[in-house]
Order: sequence, then structure tokens, then C-alpha cells
Amino acid sequence: MTKSVKQLACNAKMASRKIVSLDATKRKEVLNHMAAKLWDNRETIMEANKKDLAYAEEIGLNSAMTDRLKLDESRIQGMVDGVKAIAEQPEVVNTFYNEFKNDAGLTIKRQRIPLGVILMIFESRPNVVVDCAALAIKSSNAIVLKGGKEAKYSNEILGNLIQDVISDFIPRETVQVLASDDRSVVNELLSMEEYIDVVIPRGGHRLVEYVTENAKMPVIAHFKGLCHMYIDEMANPEKAIDLVVNAKTQRTGVCNAIETLLVHESLKETLLPKIVNALVDKGTDIRLDSKVKMDHSNIKAATDEDWATEYLDNILSIKLVSDVDDAISHIGEYGSHHSECVVSESEETCNKFLSSVDASCVMVNASTRFNDGGQLGLGAELGISTTKIHAYGPMGAEQMTTSRYVVVGDGHIRQ
Amino acid sequence: MTKSVKQLACNAKMASRKIVSLDATKRKEVLNHMAAKLWDNRETIMEANKKDLAYAEEIGLNSAMTDRLKLDESRIQGMVDGVKAIAEQPEVVNTFYNEFKNDAGLTIKRQRIPLGVILMIFESRPNVVVDCAALAIKSSNAIVLKGGKEAKYSNEILGNLIQDVISDFIPRETVQVLASDDRSVVNELLSMEEYIDVVIPRGGHRLVEYVTENAKMPVIAHFKGLCHMYIDEMANPEKAIDLVVNAKTQRTGVCNAIETLLVHESLKETLLPKIVNALVDKGTDIRLDSKVKMDHSNIKAATDEDWATEYLDNILSIKLVSDVDDAISHIGEYGSHHSECVVSESEETCNKFLSSVDASCVMVNASTRFNDGGQLGLGAELGISTTKIHAYGPMGAEQMTTSRYVVVGDGHIRQ
Repeated sequence: MTKSVKQLACNAKMASRKIVSLDATKRKEVLNHMAAKLWDNRETIMEANKKDLAYAEEIGLNSAMTDRLKLDESRIQGMVDGVKAIAEQPEVVNTFYNEFKNDAGLTIKRQRIPLGVILMIFESRPNVVVDCAALAIKSSNAIVLKGGKEAKYSNEILGNLIQDVISDFIPRETVQVLASDDRSVVNELLSMEEYIDVVIPRGGHRLVEYVTENAKMPVIAHFKGLCHMYIDEMANPEKAIDLVVNAKTQRTGVCNAIETLLVHESLKETLLPKIVNALVDKGTDIRLDSKVKMDHSNIKAATDEDWATEYLDNILSIKLVSDVDDAISHIGEYGSHHSECVVSESEETCNKFLSSVDASCVMVNASTRFNDGGQLGLGAELGISTTKIHAYGPMGAEQMTTSRYVVVGDGHIRQ
Repeated sequence: MTKSVKQLACNAKMASRKIVSLDATKRKEVLNHMAAKLWDNRETIMEANKKDLAYAEEIGLNSAMTDRLKLDESRIQGMVDGVKAIAEQPEVVNTFYNEFKNDAGLTIKRQRIPLGVILMIFESRPNVVVDCAALAIKSSNAIVLKGGKEAKYSNEILGNLIQDVISDFIPRETVQVLASDDRSVVNELLSMEEYIDVVIPRGGHRLVEYVTENAKMPVIAHFKGLCHMYIDEMANPEKAIDLVVNAKTQRTGVCNAIETLLVHESLKETLLPKIVNALVDKGTDIRLDSKVKMDHSNIKAATDEDWATEYLDNILSIKLVSDVDDAISHIGEYGSHHSECVVSESEETCNKFLSSVDASCVMVNASTRFNDGGQLGLGAELGISTTKIHAYGPMGAEQMTTSRYVVVGDGHIRQ
């Protein structure tokens, strides 16, 4: 075991113990200073980000992935606003709830407490560093962040700026960004269950599987979003077109964008061509069910592999289904428990879809792009859990805590 | 892979899908029929239990463990009352909460949903079969129960009676009791993450470690209770004696009984002898800190091994500590995150203890025996989780669920 990795994990544990009792005023102060520091250093951040973008070009990263990577002034503004918003949210930890007195006068209450040390292993987007650092401070957890090598310089500068500013208030090891590309470092961390309380892998199949198989501590997986939208026979056509275009193209390269569209076969000659044309106008590449023939340079025939692919790009596969049951069964086979949507004016169909589809967020006549901590009222998010245990769906500060019981008596004994 | 084990797991998954939509009236009916069936067959249950007790005698099981195993009419009455109480509790699954409309009129709500299939691996007490089966039905989960071989006949008859009665209403595979002693069966089940959503090992170190290392699905460990009570310099002496006696002897062989008593060294000549005498009167065997000399056939000197031992019997180790910090540090080293208690009239000391001890339940001047689902207001419990993830402390029906988001719009797209 490398001494430095063990030291890093041990430092995180010690930091987590110190910030358990961080008070509300000081917490707000740390977060607001952090926001200011990042904004003041936006030029430095963009400089570092340029090195990552140059590397992306060098290795030929696709446009959606490159877009995820990019930090311009408006995105830095977004990150900074996020930190400020987290600072303003109500306190989460050390709060009490469900208090009652039993018949004998014993006081029983629950107290929200931090998890301790969170190890987050993620791919691509550097804003994850800032969001997760702010949420960790909000929830009195220490966090160790390990990003992908494509965002190396951006993650590193963000981590350094955050450590510099928080160290005036709380241990700098509350937030640690691992710059090393070395896989063995991750391996070592995954075996340190005495220091790390939970690991969150946020990314594709290989990452999630690797972490799940090797971690000695509990895992909350933030797996891919292979999200579907089902356009029912009873869908309102105008709404359907708008919903498909929004769910695919409002921002590509994000996990809550749809990857496969399921269309009721009765709409093959009517609504489907309109949907395809609207998408083609947005530059979407279509992988079309071979039962449908449409001619355009953006369209090619779908293969079975398409149903299992998360493109994370402006690409959409489209499949005809015979009815809602057929759609449900396709989602059961290929869905990733992320976001699933039904578009229909039939209450019966919508209810059937809701009661049969297993996902962290199920939508009726609403874009899958709403499965996001900010949109769903959590403020900001660490990511979207596709694990049912602990948290299912967006994880905000509250989902980074657990609860214990506090029992206060005056010599109470059990009869 | 054995076909029968895979079939069993697959049947559990299918059962879990069918009972997702079980309605409140029918759920109550199943549980009340189950209670009646168990009561009507109490003689049969006690007959089977006698075989287990005979085996316990044969292998020389200690008295506390044998007591855990025993089912007499009053304990069967207790199990039956537990099932009836669970039937009367409010519905848990499919309920909605935290509903709100966003500015654009989109409805966002959370819905409590079952976990799916729970695998429970436990030791000793056969009432676990009944409690867990009732809680699984209450929370619309399917459950697979694997008990220890010492309760083989009792577990088997309880499983059979439950299957017989529930099969008139819901799939009999909703509750499956594994009778096989074969370890390879457990091994196979731990690899079936496509059918089993979570595994709960409830027992000692070896069981918990084995499951944690081998399970492919998430684990919620219900580890041992190596619980402490700290008697502070400022403790009220009468309350302290009552609390120690209750926490150790009200029922031995249970996880929330104390195993080590930590006593402020200033009480060495005053309160400590009184506590020891009160315990000796209750037949407790004492492992006493070698710094204290007391002469009695029940008393012998403690060794370092004692601090790490969960006796699950009428035995208590006693250690002198220099102050509350010393007590906190001992608990940090030997505690099992279960139940920890401070006895003191000093608010400052109590607060220090509360803010520094990491356990699912922390008590002030109250017996550790209160860390129990029934006592803390959950009705009944599956066990006491010592894992921070998902649930920390007693797990009732609500802790056997998770939540998803349901988003209902009218063509709402994200801007």
C-alpha cells in the first residue's frame, strides 16, 4: 500500500471528523468565499481548460464529449451561481426530526448526520469538482474526487483553488482532487473501508462494474442514462414533437437526454415522419427501425446494437412498438433505471407505464431533461443514482447524509 | 449454477413484480390470515422447535443462545401480535410525498417503492422468519430467508405455514425459507444481482464479512452489538445502577444489551462496587479491570480480548476510564456502531459524548435495550443496521423501500 494514498484517505477521515460540527454561519462563509475565489480566477481556470480542450482535439474526442469538457465564462458563472445557491439552502446536517416522547416520557428523535468520507470517481465534466465540493461542505462530508484524464488540468486547478480558499476555515483535506492517472491509486482507495464510507462511480458500464467488483465499502452507482421516450397512439402530436426534440437536442452529451425513441406502430406514416423531420432540422443523426423507410443523409438503419447504446451525442435510435406493453418490455430489457417517459393523453396508458417501468424518474408528457437535482428541487446534485439503495435519482446534500437515533431519558429502563 | 437456486431467485423476482400493486385491504387480509394461521398451528411450531432445542443440547449451545432459539406459547403469541400490529400500521409503499408544482406548472412528486427482492441471511432466532415475512409483505418486497442450522426445523415449519396461508392471496414465492445447510447455495444467491436487489447479513463478524466480500448486489450489514455504557463522574448513582442492570440483564443474548461498562476512575471505591454487587445478584459474570480488586466467584480479571468480545450472554466486562474522552476513544476503537450510552447529569459531558460517538443509536441516561424497532416507534424490525448507507439503526417496513420521482406535465420541455 502506497503511503501517500493511505495518508490521503486518512487525512480525509480526519477532516470529516473536524467538519461534523461546522456551524451554519461558518459553512455559508466558506461556500461564499469559494464562489468568489472561483469567479476571481476564471481566467486561470479557462487557461487550464484550454490544455484539456487541446488534448481532446489531439485524441479526436467527439463534439458532445468536447462540449461536456468546455469551461467558458458563462459556464464558470453557472458553477459559481450553483455554489452560492447551495450556500443559501437550509442546513441539512445535525438537524433533528420525528421527535416524540414515549408513554414513559423517554424522548426519541432522529438526527441527520454526514456519511463521513465520500470517494467520487467520475468521467468528463469538470464542473463536477465544484458541485461535489460544495455539496460535501454543505453536508459536512469530506470528499475525494477522481476525474478522468481528459479533464485533468481543469480538475486540478479547480481542486487547488478550492483547497486554497477553504483552508482558511476548515481542513483543506475536506476536498481532495486526485490528479494521478494511475489506476492502482483507485484500487488502493477501494480497499480502504476504514477511511472511506461510500464510493460513488459516476460514468459508463466499465467504470461502474469495476468499482462495484472491487470496492470494499458500499457503492452507490451513478450509471449511464439509456433513457427512452414512448410516443403512444393517443399522444398529442404537437406536444410529442416538442418533447422528442427537447429530450434529445436541448443539450446532448448529458445522461438525461433520450437515446431511443419508441413509437406506436400506428403512427408510422403520420406522426413519425414529422418527428424525424423535426430532428433532422436539429442536425440529429437517426438510427431508424428497418421497418420504416425514409431517405435522408442523416438517417440510417438501426441495428440491435443501437438499442443498447448510450450515444451521449446528437444521435437517436427509433423503434416501432406494437403497444405500451411492448414499450415497457423494451425498456425492461435495455433501460438503465435512469429516466423514462410516456407521451399519451390516455390516463390508462400513462398509469400502466408508471406502474410497470422501473426508473429513478418516470415522466408523463414531460421532457426527460427534467431528471436533474436543480429541476426537481434539490438545488444542486452530486449525480443521479441508478442504485435503489440509499438514494434513487438525483443526490443532493440531503442524500449525502444518513440518520441516527438519539434517545434521552432520566434513568429510563426497559420493562 | 444450480438450476433450483436460480429458479428460486427468479421466482422471487417474479413474485416481487406481482406484489408491487397489492392494495391496502388485501395486504391487511393476508397479514391477518398469517397471524391466525401461526396461532392455530402453535403446537406444530413448538413440536418442530423441540427438535432444534434437542440439537442445541446435543451440541452444548450456551444458555443465552438456547434462550434465543426457544419458542413457547408466549413467544408465539408475541410473534402473532407483531404480525397483527404490522397489519394495522399505515401503508408504506406507493404513497406519494413532497409534491410540488414548479413555476411552469410541472407536477413533481416522490413515490415510495419497494426495493424488489431482499435476501436475508441470519443466525439463531426463528421469530426473524415471521417478523421479516410480515415486513416484506407490508413493504411489497419478496424475501428469501436463510437461517442458521441451529433453528432449522423451526424456520422450516414457519416458512411452510406462511407459504400455505399467503398463497391464497399472493404468490407463495413472496416468502421463501431456505432449509439447505449448503454454503454453496448462499454463494450462488450472492452472485444473482439480476434477481436479488439487496442482501442483509444479520449476525456475527464472519457472516457479515463473508457476505460483504462475496455479494454482487448492495449489502446492508446488521453486524454485532458490542454496546457500551459510560458511567460518568457526574452520574446519578441510583439511576446508574438501574441502567447497568437493565442494559445487561433485562434480556441477555440480544444485540442491544451492553457488553462493556466504562466507569469513571473516581468511582472506583464508591459507585463501582455497588454496581458490581447489583450485577452479581443477577448472576452476571464479571470481567473486571485489573486495576480493581474485588473478590467473588463471579468475578475474574479482564484481558484485552474482553474489550473486543460480544458475549451475547450474562457476562459483562468493566473498564476504568480517566474521563469522557477516554470513554469515547475506547468506543471508537471497540464499538460496533450499534448502541452507545452515557450516564451523567452533566449536560456538557452528555453533549460531548453525543457529538463524538458514532453509532446508530446514542442514549443519554436510558437503557441501550431501547434500540429496537418496536421501542423506537417503527412497529417491528427486520434487524438493526450498522451500515450508514440506506438505513442506520432499526429497519422497519419504511426502510425496506426506496423512492423515485414522478414528473407529470402537459408537454413541458426544459428551457
